[in-house]
Amino acid sequence: MLRVLLFAAAAAAVCGMSAAQPADDARPATSNVPGAEYPRIHPDLRVTFRVHAPEAQKVQVIPGGNDNGLGKGPFDMTRDGQGYWTATTAPAVPGFHYYWLLVDGFACNDPSSRTFFGWNKESSGVEVPDRALDFYDPKDVPHGEVRSRWYFSKTTGRWRRAMVYTPPDYDRNPRARYPVLYLQHGSGENERGWSEQGRMNFILDNLLAEKKAQPMIVVMENGMVASRPGATPAPAQPGSRPRQNEAFPEVVVSDLIPMTDAAYRTLSDREHRAIAGLSMGAGQALQIGIANLDKFAYIGAFSGVSRNLPSDLSEIKKRVRLLWFGAGTAEPARMTSARETVEMLKKAGVAAVWFEAPGTSHEWQTWRKCLYDFAPRLFRK
Amino acid sequence: MLRVLLFAAAAAAVCGMSAAQPADDARPATSNVPGAEYPRIHPDLRVTFRVHAPEAQKVQVIPGGNDNGLGKGPFDMTRDGQGYWTATTAPAVPGFHYYWLLVDGFACNDPSSRTFFGWNKESSGVEVPDRALDFYDPKDVPHGEVRSRWYFSKTTGRWRRAMVYTPPDYDRNPRARYPVLYLQHGSGENERGWSEQGRMNFILDNLLAEKKAQPMIVVMENGMVASRPGATPAPAQPGSRPRQNEAFPEVVVSDLIPMTDAAYRTLSDREHRAIAGLSMGAGQALQIGIANLDKFAYIGAFSGVSRNLPSDLSEIKKRVRLLWFGAGTAEPARMTSARETVEMLKKAGVAAVWFEAPGTSHEWQTWRKCLYDFAPRLFRK
Repeated sequence: MLRVLLFAAAAAAVCGMSAAQPADDARPATSNVPGAEYPRIHPDLRVTFRVHAPEAQKVQVIPGGNDNGLGKGPFDMTRDGQGYWTATTAPAVPGFHYYWLLVDGFACNDPSSRTFFGWNKESSGVEVPDRALDFYDPKDVPHGEVRSRWYFSKTTGRWRRAMVYTPPDYDRNPRARYPVLYLQHGSGENERGWSEQGRMNFILDNLLAEKKAQPMIVVMENGMVASRPGATPAPAQPGSRPRQNEAFPEVVVSDLIPMTDAAYRTLSDREHRAIAGLSMGAGQALQIGIANLDKFAYIGAFSGVSRNLPSDLSEIKKRVRLLWFGAGTAEPARMTSARETVEMLKKAGVAAVWFEAPGTSHEWQTWRKCLYDFAPRLFRK
Repeated sequence: MLRVLLFAAAAAAVCGMSAAQPADDARPATSNVPGAEYPRIHPDLRVTFRVHAPEAQKVQVIPGGNDNGLGKGPFDMTRDGQGYWTATTAPAVPGFHYYWLLVDGFACNDPSSRTFFGWNKESSGVEVPDRALDFYDPKDVPHGEVRSRWYFSKTTGRWRRAMVYTPPDYDRNPRARYPVLYLQHGSGENERGWSEQGRMNFILDNLLAEKKAQPMIVVMENGMVASRPGATPAPAQPGSRPRQNEAFPEVVVSDLIPMTDAAYRTLSDREHRAIAGLSMGAGQALQIGIANLDKFAYIGAFSGVSRNLPSDLSEIKKRVRLLWFGAGTAEPARMTSARETVEMLKKAGVAAVWFEAPGTSHEWQTWRKCLYDFAPRLFRK
C-alpha cells in the first residue's frame, strides 16, 4: 500500500498532474505536459486522445510505426460542435508509445504531450501504465543524477554531448571508483532516449535500492550523428534523413571512453566496462564490443540482430564474461533469430544469456525489461 | 580566427548540421534537429521556413506571441507543386524565438525544429545568430555539467526535478565549496528553459574561462508547478492552463535549498546565496529573496516588475549586497518601470544596479545578456 501511494505521488509529480479532472475514472497520462487532461488512460488501458482544431477537415491519431502498442492506426478522430476532436483506442499494451496527430494529412505533435526524440524528430509519446510492474517508476529511494556533459571529439572535429548517469552515492564517496556501462538508443533517437523514454535512471535507482545491481556509471551518446570532418553524407530520401554515423565506433573508443575515464571516477579495465544498446544500438554494441575485447568484458544486445558475430568464436569464448541477447515476445522474428544465436553461442561455450520480455514488441517497454534483467548481471565478482 | 573556427564547429555539433546544403549562402539554424535543412538563416538574418504538407489548404508560420524577433505574424507560406510550403521573413532580431506552424488553423510544431518547453507546451524555436556576440556559444573551454536531480518536496508531497549546473572543476576539487545561484524561468516554461533556450551553461563556462565570474553552482526548478496536497487548482480558461504554483516560495525555502545544501558542496550562508529570474521568475526572485533576507544577499530581476518591493527599504539597504534589474531596450514599458525603480532604490541607498540589453525585447536574448552582466557581480569579496 505504501508503495502504491508513493507511486501515485511520484507519477503525479512526473506529469504535474492536475487535480481537476473530468468526472470519469480515466487519468491523464504521465507523459502529458503539466495540466493537460488528454491523452487519458482508462482502467482497461484504452487511451482517449483529444485535440482542438476547429478549422481542420480531418484529424487522426497515428501510432509511431503505425502499429505499436496503441494498435494499428491511423485512428480517425470525431469532431464535436466546438471543434474538439476525440478518439479512443482499444486497450493498449503497457509501455511507452510514440504517436503523432495527422491534421489534414500533416503529421505533427499533440500539444498536450511532452516530446521525445524519436523517428529523427521530436515526437509525441504516451505512457500506458503496467499495473503489474513498477520497476521503472520513480520511488522513494535514493536517486542518481543524469548529467549533461559536453566534450570535444577529435574523430569528428566537433563538440558532442554525452548523458552520464551517476549512482546515488557518487558524490558522497569521493574516493570510490565505479564500473561503466555504455548504453545506446535505437535508430532515429538520441542520447536522451534512455533517460526520457527508457527511464534508465529510475530502473538503476530501484535496482540499487534493492541491492540487485552493482553501483555503476552509465554513459549514453548519440549513435546517429558521427561523421569524420569533410565526410560526404549519404543522400537523403524524401521524407527521411541520412544516417551519418559511420564514425561512431571510433568516437566511442577514441573519444568517449577516454573522456569518461578522465572526467569520472571509473574503474577503467575491461572487467569493469560493458556496452549495450537497443535495435540499431544493439548492432553498434556488438560491433564495438567484439572489435574491442581489450576494452569490454560484457556485451548486451536488446532487440538486435547478430550479424556482427565472427565465425571464429574462440576469442569471445575466452574473454567475454557475458554476451546477452533479449527481445520481446511480440517481435517474433527478432526473438527467434536472437534465441537461435544464443543456443549456438552456448553450444560453443560462450557465456551467452537469452531473455524474453513477455508481451511486448519493438518498443521501449521491451528495452526497459531488458535493462532490468541485464544490469544486475554486470560486474559481479 | 581560431575562435571563429571553433564556434563554427561547435554550432555544427549542437545541431548535428549536415554538410549537404542547398546551393545558397543560407545555413540551417543550430536549433534544427540533426540533418534538417530548414529553417535556414540567410546572411542578412532573414529566415526561410519550409514544410511538406501536400494535403493542407493553408499553412502559416506564427511567431511565439505573434510579435517576437521574427516580426509580426502570421506569415503565409506558399505552396509548390510537390506540396512543400515556404515562407521567408524580413531580417530577424538575433536570438532565440519561439514559433509554430499553423496548418489549416491548427498550431503545431515544425518537425524540423527541436522543441523547447514554452507557452505551457513543447514549442518550436529558431536560433538566429548574432554576428557580434558569442558569449553564449559553446567554445573550446572547460565545460560544466547540467545535472538532472530528483528530490522529494515535503511542501507538495511529490517528487520534483531540479536542474543543477556544476562548474567545470567541481569534481576535481572534492573539498572545495561553492556559492549558489537559484535561477528561474518565465511563465509557461520549466526547469530546462535556462539550459536549453538560455544556454546558461555555456554563458557560465565562458565567463569562468575568462575569470570574469566566481565559480558557482546554479539551481533551476519548475516555478509553474507547485501546489500543496489537496489544493484546488484555479479553473483553466479554454485554451489555457492554470498556474498552480502558489507553493513555489515554500518549495524553494523549505525543500530546494535544504536539498541543495545537503547534496552539493555549497557555501550555505546568505553571503553565498543569490536568486534571480526572468519575467514571472523575476517576480518570484524578488518575492522569495526579499522575504528571506536571512538566506539571500543577491537578487536579480530580468525583465521583471518591481511590485514586490516593500515600502520600508531599510532592511534591504542594510542586508542586500546587490539588487539588480535589467530589461531589453525593445521592451520599453518594462524597461522604464524597472529603471525608475532602480533610481528610487539608489536614492534610498540600496545597492541597486540597472542594465539595458541593447536592441532586444521580452525574449531569451535579453535574458542571456542579463545573466552575462549579473553573474560576474555575484559573490565578490
